[in-house]
Amino acid sequence: MKMIDVGEKPKTERVAVARGFVTMSPATVQRIRRGEVEKGDVLAAARLAGILAAKKTPDIVPLCHPIALSAVDVTAEPGARGVAVTATVRTVDRTGVEMEALTAVSAACLTVYDMLKRYEKGMTIVGVELMEKKGGRSGHWVRAPAAPPAPRRAAASRSRRTRGG
Amino acid sequence: MKMIDVGEKPKTERVAVARGFVTMSPATVQRIRRGEVEKGDVLAAARLAGILAAKKTPDIVPLCHPIALSAVDVTAEPGARGVAVTATVRTVDRTGVEMEALTAVSAACLTVYDMLKRYEKGMTIVGVELMEKKGGRSGHWVRAPAAPPAPRRAAASRSRRTRGG
Amino acid sequence: MKMIDVGEKPKTERVAVARGFVTMSPATVQRIRRGEVEKGDVLAAARLAGILAAKKTPDIVPLCHPIALSAVDVTAEPGARGVAVTATVRTVDRTGVEMEALTAVSAACLTVYDMLKRYEKGMTIVGVELMEKKGGRSGHWVRAPAAPPAPRRAAASRSRRTRGG
Amino acid sequence: MKMIDVGEKPKTERVAVARGFVTMSPATVQRIRRGEVEKGDVLAAARLAGILAAKKTPDIVPLCHPIALSAVDVTAEPGARGVAVTATVRTVDRTGVEMEALTAVSAACLTVYDMLKRYEKGMTIVGVELMEKKGGRSGHWVRAPAAPPAPRRAAASRSRRTRGG
Amino acid sequence: MKMIDVGEKPKTERVAVARGFVTMSPATVQRIRRGEVEKGDVLAAARLAGILAAKKTPDIVPLCHPIALSAVDVTAEPGARGVAVTATVRTVDRTGVEMEALTAVSAACLTVYDMLKRYEKGMTIVGVELMEKKGGRSGHWVRAPAAPPAPRRAAASRSRRTRGG
Amino acid sequence: MKMIDVGEKPKTERVAVARGFVTMSPATVQRIRRGEVEKGDVLAAARLAGILAAKKTPDIVPLCHPIALSAVDVTAEPGARGVAVTATVRTVDRTGVEMEALTAVSAACLTVYDMLKRYEKGMTIVGVELMEKKGGRSGHWVRAPAAPPAPRRAAASRSRRTRGG
Repeated sequence: MKMIDVGEKPKTERVAVARGFVTMSPATVQRIRRGEVEKGDVLAAARLAGILAAKKTPDIVPLCHPIALSAVDVTAEPGARGVAVTATVRTVDRTGVEMEALTAVSAACLTVYDMLKRYEKGMTIVGVELMEKKGGRSGHWVRAPAAPPAPRRAAASRSRRTRGG
Repeated sequence: MKMIDVGEKPKTERVAVARGFVTMSPATVQRIRRGEVEKGDVLAAARLAGILAAKKTPDIVPLCHPIALSAVDVTAEPGARGVAVTATVRTVDRTGVEMEALTAVSAACLTVYDMLKRYEKGMTIVGVELMEKKGGRSGHWVRAPAAPPAPRRAAASRSRRTRGG
Repeated sequence: MKMIDVGEKPKTERVAVARGFVTMSPATVQRIRRGEVEKGDVLAAARLAGILAAKKTPDIVPLCHPIALSAVDVTAEPGARGVAVTATVRTVDRTGVEMEALTAVSAACLTVYDMLKRYEKGMTIVGVELMEKKGGRSGHWVRAPAAPPAPRRAAASRSRRTRGG
Repeated sequence: MKMIDVGEKPKTERVAVARGFVTMSPATVQRIRRGEVEKGDVLAAARLAGILAAKKTPDIVPLCHPIALSAVDVTAEPGARGVAVTATVRTVDRTGVEMEALTAVSAACLTVYDMLKRYEKGMTIVGVELMEKKGGRSGHWVRAPAAPPAPRRAAASRSRRTRGG
Repeated sequence: MKMIDVGEKPKTERVAVARGFVTMSPATVQRIRRGEVEKGDVLAAARLAGILAAKKTPDIVPLCHPIALSAVDVTAEPGARGVAVTATVRTVDRTGVEMEALTAVSAACLTVYDMLKRYEKGMTIVGVELMEKKGGRSGHWVRAPAAPPAPRRAAASRSRRTRGG
Repeated sequence: MKMIDVGEKPKTERVAVARGFVTMSPATVQRIRRGEVEKGDVLAAARLAGILAAKKTPDIVPLCHPIALSAVDVTAEPGARGVAVTATVRTVDRTGVEMEALTAVSAACLTVYDMLKRYEKGMTIVGVELMEKKGGRSGHWVRAPAAPPAPRRAAASRSRRTRGG
């Protein structure tokens, strides 16, 4: 078990974008839209929880390096079948920020669940995944778009890679 | 925004079971089985990360109550299409431990991703959801089994409730 | 240096209410009301930061006991000369929650400052103080009202005590 | 809600100085001077709590960037009407350390309160404010001296700005 | 890997006492006694670090239960060959506080090292061990006194057990 | 009390190696080797706890600077009389990583104790010490080998220093 050595890698600009989704019934989505949630503002809490979690990533994910984040933006949007969350994290450091983006998304989704679990316990957090990554040795990575009918999620994970700086 | 009052609820035994899944290619599953992962033992790290995260839940999920956990058990099992994670959390307290179980699962899944992302960036965390909950006012809740063809995940969230103590 | 022994004290219901104020120019208050703050929703962020900080109190204030909080409510209201913050914290435990309430208020005030410092560096956090405390050996304590002209804040700290359970 | 992007700002030397005050009766000040406080050394605990809190700032103030602090110094001095706290924080980074200095002062003041609350619940934390800030785009900022009679604190917050690097 | 279930154990009074020692040259001990240490008051910092660490134990030691500590006292005394540290921790809970006492001692010893490492890098932390434990199923445990010449530390760990409540 | 200023020091590569030992009976060592420990995999838990603690060092040791660690490796090996732990920590920063290495070792040793305390309470953590340090003003430092009969541990702390960059 080790936190691998990144000391020889140069400090470069890096960005990671991740997303996730909390499925719920239309009635629960309506509660969010109408502000009828006893614990308060679901979307504001989810966004703030995501930002705070991005900063806690090396404490939550054991082998992650501590990184000086230069920006974190988290969105949470209610849709027909639930709440879509995205996180964009930037740094100028020796290693990427994929884990920070994914951790932000996970914490935001957990917060959505927590604020609404009184109304619907069966909600599921689905599709927490990296969408895009820029900077560092592995260059520019973009998730391949899911095939239209997409009977299985796994089909979406074929990826296209472009050369990066 | 508030952490709602649970001071009048009695302290009772409570259990929550949650699960989640990290999808990946068969080649990546093989790496785990063969111990060919540079960062080390994926499953041990994931389980420990889950246990530690259960204890951090009130710090990660803003409106969660701090709770005296009496037991946490996290499993992580590789299968044909990825790693299945479960968490079982117990307490004798005034509020349930669903969030602790879900947070443990999320952290374990994030840790699986982190240790393997060098080999496959397209992995997705899917199906992070509560399976069962016992104790407290809402009694015994068990997730309804997913319908066989299950064209939509949402169909799985109808639930069956039994009377609890 | 020691965290004093509370093991022999009975677990009783306890409440503490604290308040604080961030002074600022009317122009900055207007920014909050109009939502013209680059970092986002000042009042939601302040309230959430207060709730999270209440839970971190034993980590921030070295000789505080860890306590099982049963409720935390934080308000943040813009007024003519700044933002007024209050925190109400409840527990059923062996020691009071004054520090949790005061820490919540301080963190909420710091968050207000952080989100607005780009527009006005001269803001001051004033009057962070306990307003009321119920439960425990010292009974019911209520801060004495400030004398009308109140040339010195210290005059406000004479207090009235009523017998508690 | 977002942690704004500072990735394009150069790393420069930055300093922030903040202060705060805990008002109390002369009898309580005497306790500190005579070392008659059951919990122990009030001033040492306050200073250490301030230093530790400076390092926790991005965890306490949600939209703060994590920063590599190069120095933190906290003082706590008893005077006729209470304890005066100052914090000086330095960094070589992309963003300023005002929040670190203010958070250090707040935590030190809360610690003073905690150690003395048994003797005087009516103490108030007043005047937590930035005194000076150097480095970064906004240059050198110094708080304007308070007007002599100072009937209102707000009068003190007019500021003088000098050009910085 | 699991945090074992203590939910069926009754809440009882429990105490644990641990000790440790930081060896150093007489010259370095003199620095402490004379207050000639650039970082400040070594013993106060060590004691406070120990108390804070006791509260962080479930975060530092992965399979420890979170516990409601009712008292923590840490001492740090300079002697001829170094600094002796002890920690006494109390709770009324379902599991013991040995780990809290040992973690407090370790953190206090690390803090002593940190404040003095500029003067002597070769200091060693020795003999971090449980001295006594009361309460719970295993009753009253007291470390057997070390044999006089004690050529090997391991000889000291034979223990005597008395019946407890 | 202050965190001393390192802002003028250049960022250089630095390495620190520390070690420690948990003494125990041969029967307890056998339990580790046979995997007969109820809490789970002792060595994996110890190593992960060490890595996580290295990252928490500035939170555990009050006057430590927060540092961007570039690598952490922790080993834990069972031997005839107990478990030997080592930690190697690297950074490219303004101050050394001795405290991170020593904190990692301490946390790993505490974790070994925690997982085995049910079987043997008399285990002792001994010899937590810096072995080697490279980089920074003080150059290359290596602990002098202990004299063969070594009746007193303190004899081992004479050190040899070589010139560094």
